[in-house]
Amino acid sequence: MHESSRLPVGIIGASGYGGVQLVRLLQDHPQLEVAYLGGDRSAGKEFAELYPHLGPHLNLTIEAIDVDRIAERCAAVFLSLPNGLAYDLAPALLERGCKVLDLSADYRFHDLKTYALWYGGDRQDAAVAHTAIYGLPELYRNRIANAQLIGCPGCYPTASLLALAPALKQGLIDPDTIVIDAKSGTSGAGRQAKTNALLAEAGNSVGAYGVARHRHTPEIEQICSDLSGHEVLLQFTPHLMPMVRGIHATIYAKLRDPNLTTEDCLTVYQAFYRNAPMVKVLTHGTYPQTKWAAGTNLCYLGLEVDARTGRIVLLSAIDNLIKGQAGQAIQCLNLMQGWEEGLGLPTLCYYP
Amino acid sequence: MHESSRLPVGIIGASGYGGVQLVRLLQDHPQLEVAYLGGDRSAGKEFAELYPHLGPHLNLTIEAIDVDRIAERCAAVFLSLPNGLAYDLAPALLERGCKVLDLSADYRFHDLKTYALWYGGDRQDAAVAHTAIYGLPELYRNRIANAQLIGCPGCYPTASLLALAPALKQGLIDPDTIVIDAKSGTSGAGRQAKTNALLAEAGNSVGAYGVARHRHTPEIEQICSDLSGHEVLLQFTPHLMPMVRGIHATIYAKLRDPNLTTEDCLTVYQAFYRNAPMVKVLTHGTYPQTKWAAGTNLCYLGLEVDARTGRIVLLSAIDNLIKGQAGQAIQCLNLMQGWEEGLGLPTLCYYP
Amino acid sequence: MHESSRLPVGIIGASGYGGVQLVRLLQDHPQLEVAYLGGDRSAGKEFAELYPHLGPHLNLTIEAIDVDRIAERCAAVFLSLPNGLAYDLAPALLERGCKVLDLSADYRFHDLKTYALWYGGDRQDAAVAHTAIYGLPELYRNRIANAQLIGCPGCYPTASLLALAPALKQGLIDPDTIVIDAKSGTSGAGRQAKTNALLAEAGNSVGAYGVARHRHTPEIEQICSDLSGHEVLLQFTPHLMPMVRGIHATIYAKLRDPNLTTEDCLTVYQAFYRNAPMVKVLTHGTYPQTKWAAGTNLCYLGLEVDARTGRIVLLSAIDNLIKGQAGQAIQCLNLMQGWEEGLGLPTLCYYP
Amino acid sequence: MHESSRLPVGIIGASGYGGVQLVRLLQDHPQLEVAYLGGDRSAGKEFAELYPHLGPHLNLTIEAIDVDRIAERCAAVFLSLPNGLAYDLAPALLERGCKVLDLSADYRFHDLKTYALWYGGDRQDAAVAHTAIYGLPELYRNRIANAQLIGCPGCYPTASLLALAPALKQGLIDPDTIVIDAKSGTSGAGRQAKTNALLAEAGNSVGAYGVARHRHTPEIEQICSDLSGHEVLLQFTPHLMPMVRGIHATIYAKLRDPNLTTEDCLTVYQAFYRNAPMVKVLTHGTYPQTKWAAGTNLCYLGLEVDARTGRIVLLSAIDNLIKGQAGQAIQCLNLMQGWEEGLGLPTLCYYP
Repeated sequence: MHESSRLPVGIIGASGYGGVQLVRLLQDHPQLEVAYLGGDRSAGKEFAELYPHLGPHLNLTIEAIDVDRIAERCAAVFLSLPNGLAYDLAPALLERGCKVLDLSADYRFHDLKTYALWYGGDRQDAAVAHTAIYGLPELYRNRIANAQLIGCPGCYPTASLLALAPALKQGLIDPDTIVIDAKSGTSGAGRQAKTNALLAEAGNSVGAYGVARHRHTPEIEQICSDLSGHEVLLQFTPHLMPMVRGIHATIYAKLRDPNLTTEDCLTVYQAFYRNAPMVKVLTHGTYPQTKWAAGTNLCYLGLEVDARTGRIVLLSAIDNLIKGQAGQAIQCLNLMQGWEEGLGLPTLCYYP
Repeated sequence: MHESSRLPVGIIGASGYGGVQLVRLLQDHPQLEVAYLGGDRSAGKEFAELYPHLGPHLNLTIEAIDVDRIAERCAAVFLSLPNGLAYDLAPALLERGCKVLDLSADYRFHDLKTYALWYGGDRQDAAVAHTAIYGLPELYRNRIANAQLIGCPGCYPTASLLALAPALKQGLIDPDTIVIDAKSGTSGAGRQAKTNALLAEAGNSVGAYGVARHRHTPEIEQICSDLSGHEVLLQFTPHLMPMVRGIHATIYAKLRDPNLTTEDCLTVYQAFYRNAPMVKVLTHGTYPQTKWAAGTNLCYLGLEVDARTGRIVLLSAIDNLIKGQAGQAIQCLNLMQGWEEGLGLPTLCYYP
Repeated sequence: MHESSRLPVGIIGASGYGGVQLVRLLQDHPQLEVAYLGGDRSAGKEFAELYPHLGPHLNLTIEAIDVDRIAERCAAVFLSLPNGLAYDLAPALLERGCKVLDLSADYRFHDLKTYALWYGGDRQDAAVAHTAIYGLPELYRNRIANAQLIGCPGCYPTASLLALAPALKQGLIDPDTIVIDAKSGTSGAGRQAKTNALLAEAGNSVGAYGVARHRHTPEIEQICSDLSGHEVLLQFTPHLMPMVRGIHATIYAKLRDPNLTTEDCLTVYQAFYRNAPMVKVLTHGTYPQTKWAAGTNLCYLGLEVDARTGRIVLLSAIDNLIKGQAGQAIQCLNLMQGWEEGLGLPTLCYYP
Repeated sequence: MHESSRLPVGIIGASGYGGVQLVRLLQDHPQLEVAYLGGDRSAGKEFAELYPHLGPHLNLTIEAIDVDRIAERCAAVFLSLPNGLAYDLAPALLERGCKVLDLSADYRFHDLKTYALWYGGDRQDAAVAHTAIYGLPELYRNRIANAQLIGCPGCYPTASLLALAPALKQGLIDPDTIVIDAKSGTSGAGRQAKTNALLAEAGNSVGAYGVARHRHTPEIEQICSDLSGHEVLLQFTPHLMPMVRGIHATIYAKLRDPNLTTEDCLTVYQAFYRNAPMVKVLTHGTYPQTKWAAGTNLCYLGLEVDARTGRIVLLSAIDNLIKGQAGQAIQCLNLMQGWEEGLGLPTLCYYP
């Protein structure tokens, strides 16, 4: 029985970077309160053992994942688990009256065949899955407000789609020419130890991975297709950067009208995001730096039209773990509760 | 009067990163010897004062730039100066019998109107400029061997053109669809102190600059036009990476024949570079990491065909200061002297 | 005429890292409000031009430094200027009724001869200087609360003194054996472009500087002498780290009583800082990481007694620009206003 | 049957950072040739699969560890294995006539009780162990030349001992006052994936570890005791730096004669290392940067006497994987073969 006036929420998968981000952000949220930290590998550990810097602030122990106890204590639950685990948990939590915000890929796809093709797995939750809403507030604000189950976007799709949406929605670009060149800090790979994410390996170096086969591709395409009204296939290439946090997406497409100027396009973007407190469209000549977004839930957007080539170049920067993951999930929950969407979310980095 | 059996060479602009790179590389060259270090700002200084780690190895003082004394002592001269200074020096050095390898943009353009448009400046050396050869050995080996004046390529053009050349030469791609997304370490900005190249600013961050207007664009276009036989306009976007050395170029283009496979294209690339000791074409599924190229004169190339989109993705990594600058200039001089082109040049990084 | 209910404050030297830090922190402060941004070099510039990520939040123009106008608009003023400029401004501001918090070295020294010896300069403000209080709240809480002029500590002294204070005050260590080995991110060097702070130079490398002659040495010694009651001379060596923010001080001293254990000493430290909300003493076996302190006003302390050698090893981590500079100044102003000392100051990093 | 005129050598533990470093360095060695790559985990893999950048240069497969086949093919063997594995292999290899250079801690200790105390393990090779020579060529050149079994020094001990040796040998300092504050890049932790060595964890941060209990402590003490002639206990604290390669040791000690100047001490150091081609003593006022040593087998040394405190501050920088590991092992083998000790070893970094 929870007695505080704040909404009690659970975080399942609390020991990973998504989990610790949620815990951290919720410390500053005026209406939400952590009521359950769940995790199978770390069950029984004090959270402060894993993250000593959160110790003085949070006196919680990680518990085993028990659906009944979670539902008893929490009004909403964030699932921050590897792909393929949420769809075993979410139906039971929804049944018990919890709102569910899933940070994995499990509930991002309208079409479960696409999910199966790129992620594999045999799942029985089709009916539930069809009620899930894609948790990108800038595009689906109203649907999110009325949802019980949110499939929170991937980090690359967030950076990419916020940059592409106005152009696609207004028909400024030819969707068949879209090329997304994305650059991510290594925290996107999670806290599991992997050789290629060691500082000794990823430090001082830049390289691409998953070329022409990264699983965020169909996720981006799905939403681009929604926005443009016809099926989009696009090029997406992720790269690992020698830095901890941040994603920068550089996106190229042919303008339908080659006479459009940078100023014209900026006007469209500013209008599109006029009421989006988490998106900042930069003035002409200023390009986003990932460090401006670090530690915030903002997406910075810049753009440039190249009159020589007839292309628009879109530039987007987010914090992969906040706007690209945990912060955006909270933004969704804010909407689901009828609160201001930016409630309790940080918007100012500590520069430099 | 120089008595060694090695070829005496001069380095003008010795105190910058291009200069120190040349000095360093020449320490390992069996046939070349530094006979003159020139620089106006640093004239009178011991080189070892500026670079103590080279002190035990090199006992030279930087001298004022005096064309007669340079020519007296040097058979070949590397000019490593800001743009717009070489064209005042090169004609006089050539007249006095020196071979000249210019690392600036001054002698890279066939068409001085293009130079004027992007670099400005009023120059009187048109006749001399027309004798200059673009110093990319993998494309212009024979012309370089017979030249007296070399316009050494920029760092971004080197990474980009080596990746594009086989595809353009063999007509694999539609040149109008080329998009180059390039990522560079900050040493490319040189050793002059600039706020945006401070570790405090460029560290932990990624961002684009010079979007749609970087001066390496026309240089890349010029050579692409040569290779494809018709005028090419392309998209080029440079980004600053939070690392010291290295350039990674990720290049996108539509295949003319959508049935081509990755293996087909790799076969073309391997054939094209069969006799190019400084280019390594990677096997399918392996993508270049800039750190493999760091401290070497190699260019690593990888590629992937995306059957879904009909595009080829080309991946290229070099050390911006060696293959992208000083090492490539030495590779040219090797050819001009009739030596093996890789003579004295490093090809193995210290990993990690 | 300022109409808000918040206290209007000025920031002089607003364009540097100290200035932007103050501006940033004040956005989250419930009782303070920026009423004047002053700077001679940047006068006339919009602040958002210099720091676009603060643009959406702050609509202020940097103004020339005019003492009368500052005093008219501000109840308190932060001076974030190079050493030697504050002592020309502070007396006039104090006379006009402003509280002054100086972030430079100008008002840190009881003894102006020590200042003159290490900093040079000929100053006329001895009477004013003698009213200045050293702004380390954990040591001088009451004096700060009653002061009009604060000499805010240097970044290295903050990290060092918070680690040393309990041991010195309780007489645990022999002050003649103190060795401070300090490691700083490069943002400590400020935003002025300097070659040695370039990412290309300071990246991937570690080295010492100012060995046996850094100007923070006498500042640390002055306070250690106060704490221990006799004159202390100590060893201080700063090092530049390949990172943006953070200071780690590792401090060595001989224990007076070699039978003391780590637990004994931790007990002393925990008691000493029981009422210090900005200092976190870690449990045995946990050592501070600078990233835990990044973006916060906290100081993390750890320690270990080495029974083999009879020494204590003290470990201290702060954010050099917040607890080491701007945040600590605000902490002082909070005390001067009679508010809770941590009011409006961040205490939780975004990990990782 | 090996037919080349070069000396055939084996590398056991070829897939780790020590192994790849040896392979890399041996590519440039005029007298040594890799004849066997051994490793149990990676047996059967092409070396070029693990390290594609070495692919074009090395056509070798990693084989299971088979003592007879190693001895048949190799005149000398480098063991680059975790602690506790070499002492099972070395006796058998020595028996079969191989020279053995062990990079682990197994053969570094004169006194196996010290080994047992700090490393544990139950070993049967006491007789063999007593024939092992500590492989620090600058101190034990002659003994190494005549040895069959070398216990190669740890990375921290190499940096520390080269800095301390002249002072201890000449009695300049009081050994009881020695404090070693060491800073290492993360490659020292090896290529095994560990959470704390992830870029996301170790990037942008500095912290100490193993305070008062790191296992390199007794190793340093053993040699300091040899040098000074009485038993030394000292303070050693390692720190993890946000960089890939390099160790910087900052060492503090009280001078016995407080009238000694920096110049006096530099004279002693220059004399001590006059014939040591791998040690560079810097001039007064120049302090070593780890990046000067990166990719080389050099140790850079600087020092400063602090007349105020009566201490000497010693500064030392090496590449932890070359002079601190693989390069030094080759330097030893050079001596064992009667060759010039620096044969084939790199001494010039690529700056920056």
